[in-house]
Amino acid sequence: MKYAFADRVRYLQSSAVRDILKIVGQGNVISFAGGLPDDDLFPIEGLEDAFSRVFATGKKSLQYMETEGYRPLREVIIERMSKKGINKFTADDVLVTTGSQQAIDLFSRIMLSPGDVVLTEDPTYLAALQVFKSYEAQVVAVDSDADGMLPDDLEQKIKQYNPKCVYVVPTFSNPAGRVWSLERRKKLIELVHKYRVVVFEDDPYGELQFADNETYKPLSSLDDGTHVMYTSTFSKTAVPALRTGWIVGPYQIIRMMAQAKQANDLHSNSLSQQALYQLCTHYDLDAHIRHLIQVYKGRMEIMVKSIEQAELPNVHFVKPKGGMFLWVEVDEAINTTNLLNDAVSNGVAYVPGEPFFAGRPKQNTMRLNFTHATPDKIEQGMNLLVQVLSKEMEKRLVEIGK
Amino acid sequence: MKYAFADRVRYLQSSAVRDILKIVGQGNVISFAGGLPDDDLFPIEGLEDAFSRVFATGKKSLQYMETEGYRPLREVIIERMSKKGINKFTADDVLVTTGSQQAIDLFSRIMLSPGDVVLTEDPTYLAALQVFKSYEAQVVAVDSDADGMLPDDLEQKIKQYNPKCVYVVPTFSNPAGRVWSLERRKKLIELVHKYRVVVFEDDPYGELQFADNETYKPLSSLDDGTHVMYTSTFSKTAVPALRTGWIVGPYQIIRMMAQAKQANDLHSNSLSQQALYQLCTHYDLDAHIRHLIQVYKGRMEIMVKSIEQAELPNVHFVKPKGGMFLWVEVDEAINTTNLLNDAVSNGVAYVPGEPFFAGRPKQNTMRLNFTHATPDKIEQGMNLLVQVLSKEMEKRLVEIGK
Repeated sequence: MKYAFADRVRYLQSSAVRDILKIVGQGNVISFAGGLPDDDLFPIEGLEDAFSRVFATGKKSLQYMETEGYRPLREVIIERMSKKGINKFTADDVLVTTGSQQAIDLFSRIMLSPGDVVLTEDPTYLAALQVFKSYEAQVVAVDSDADGMLPDDLEQKIKQYNPKCVYVVPTFSNPAGRVWSLERRKKLIELVHKYRVVVFEDDPYGELQFADNETYKPLSSLDDGTHVMYTSTFSKTAVPALRTGWIVGPYQIIRMMAQAKQANDLHSNSLSQQALYQLCTHYDLDAHIRHLIQVYKGRMEIMVKSIEQAELPNVHFVKPKGGMFLWVEVDEAINTTNLLNDAVSNGVAYVPGEPFFAGRPKQNTMRLNFTHATPDKIEQGMNLLVQVLSKEMEKRLVEIGK
Repeated sequence: MKYAFADRVRYLQSSAVRDILKIVGQGNVISFAGGLPDDDLFPIEGLEDAFSRVFATGKKSLQYMETEGYRPLREVIIERMSKKGINKFTADDVLVTTGSQQAIDLFSRIMLSPGDVVLTEDPTYLAALQVFKSYEAQVVAVDSDADGMLPDDLEQKIKQYNPKCVYVVPTFSNPAGRVWSLERRKKLIELVHKYRVVVFEDDPYGELQFADNETYKPLSSLDDGTHVMYTSTFSKTAVPALRTGWIVGPYQIIRMMAQAKQANDLHSNSLSQQALYQLCTHYDLDAHIRHLIQVYKGRMEIMVKSIEQAELPNVHFVKPKGGMFLWVEVDEAINTTNLLNDAVSNGVAYVPGEPFFAGRPKQNTMRLNFTHATPDKIEQGMNLLVQVLSKEMEKRLVEIGK
């Protein structure tokens, strides 16, 4: 039978890239494609202890819970947020979500009518683009450099498009690993106040900061509590399996999102919320995060060194200051989407940069994850990748008759 | 700041009833309003053991998982489904969701464009109505009696509205506690095949069946695997806190729903999925369900007896054959929505029937939950409710001058 789907499913089609990468999971390929933390570093003892503590509180811990989330966890989140300078809010202004992905989705659901405009960086988080498009919003890319969106272009596009929101990943962005300068952050806040636009600040990686002598203030901490929705997650700092994220921001928006969440799934897994509360109060999560930083930073250095030593022509990247990704621009003659099949056959996988672009894609880009593979595998995988890239360069040079 | 929400939020407003019932949770009121199972019956030892088993499998259990859900759990679900006669599917045709609520939501998201029609029973599950409306679909009620939808009206409305789907809760419906006859089930399947309409069968309560000598075949078991999406949940048989439900049906639809789920929340809590797999394979869930049935049936009998003994004039109900709810129609002079405040002040709460209607509401109806309160509390609460109803009857009689 042919089923009559809704119009909006045209934005939900699976991609060729995703199909290739699905195969990677099963084979012998070294993958820099996913966005996975390293399982070996998961705080399993701490978590098992946390779950035991929850079970010890009795059977009520297994009942339905309010949509907004477990209040003691929301209070812990508020406490952790205030250490980052986000201090205009109470536990009432927090909604616990099934990963920060759901925060992006619920926000879009209550904010975006078909045709509404969202301004984004370029490139930006692929799955956010998919969400915005699935609500039939129009995504417009703002010109950016290494310090963030260019204020002139941002202002011009706000005036031109009257956007519903500006979506940004200002700290260790996915995929570009970019960190916005403080000046640009302040300028963004100034502009959205001037034109009354909501900012959606997506910060899943902010805690994975490599340099301990720098401070990257969240946009939310620079706002007066009216214009910025801030979302993050326990997936990168604790574990992904619990699918627990949160969003904090103006109560009117949080309240509407909670109503949308009620329709979406009533509430997120409440046993896990209670366990995360126990983990935050009986386990040194910050020490754990410091350990993660140390390990991930080491892996990033190995990855960067591999590329530098290869001395491939026209390769550009910015050394990440945190997060999980290295964004690489290769020679313009190379199309990384077309090259993926070849790379996978040679034992290494990456994500081509193309789908991360809201505007015109740069087809010579790729995103490499440095947190999941061990140092050995990173070296091996990078060697394979460099070989694939070198061969492709040679082919291209032959083609253009040099 | 005034925020510019999407058009669709007009369907997400909180109701006065919900606001009253929120207060109930905090006070000393005996509540028949919620749809909660009894915490005291939760299989906490079985679950704690199940989680230990998962932790013992190692750190990989804490990693991200595929959107479709934990495959061994999907296989267990298929096995349990086949015992109910649903045997046209494999684990590939199952999507694990955050409660069956998310199954309703994802299905609607991929199926319903604004203006599309959904046919429902009347009354029907309130939160499903909210989801359909939130996608700006038009809900049309089909005339029903105690045996299910009336085939003539169903056929006429299919022809008139060309609906995207027929949403039904054929076994122990929420709120009406109705069970469809086999004949009506077969007739529905015949009609949707004739007119090529998808059925969404919502069956959260089917396992809570009081009479062990009767069989209520799921609609999905009467279909050839092409026209029925079947959803259920572990919330009523195991525990709600894990928010784990599933949907099984034609692969094309499941696949599209999985893509929508990827945008919505990537995947549901995977630790809980693994724990439920362990629970299903190392704990006698069926014996546990038999125990639940015995307890809940006893409570239902007490509730029914309280009403019968009160001998209030013009009170009608059908004794539930399973599930969690008793649906009561009182004298037409009584508006249960208006009466709720009074009832709560007198120490007892229910849900007024009005919001459950897709068509013209019967304002003299109410839904009573019999699974959460203890037998003592049920008796006390029903006495209070009967007093409130009697007084209201007297007032009404005085008003109309008798």
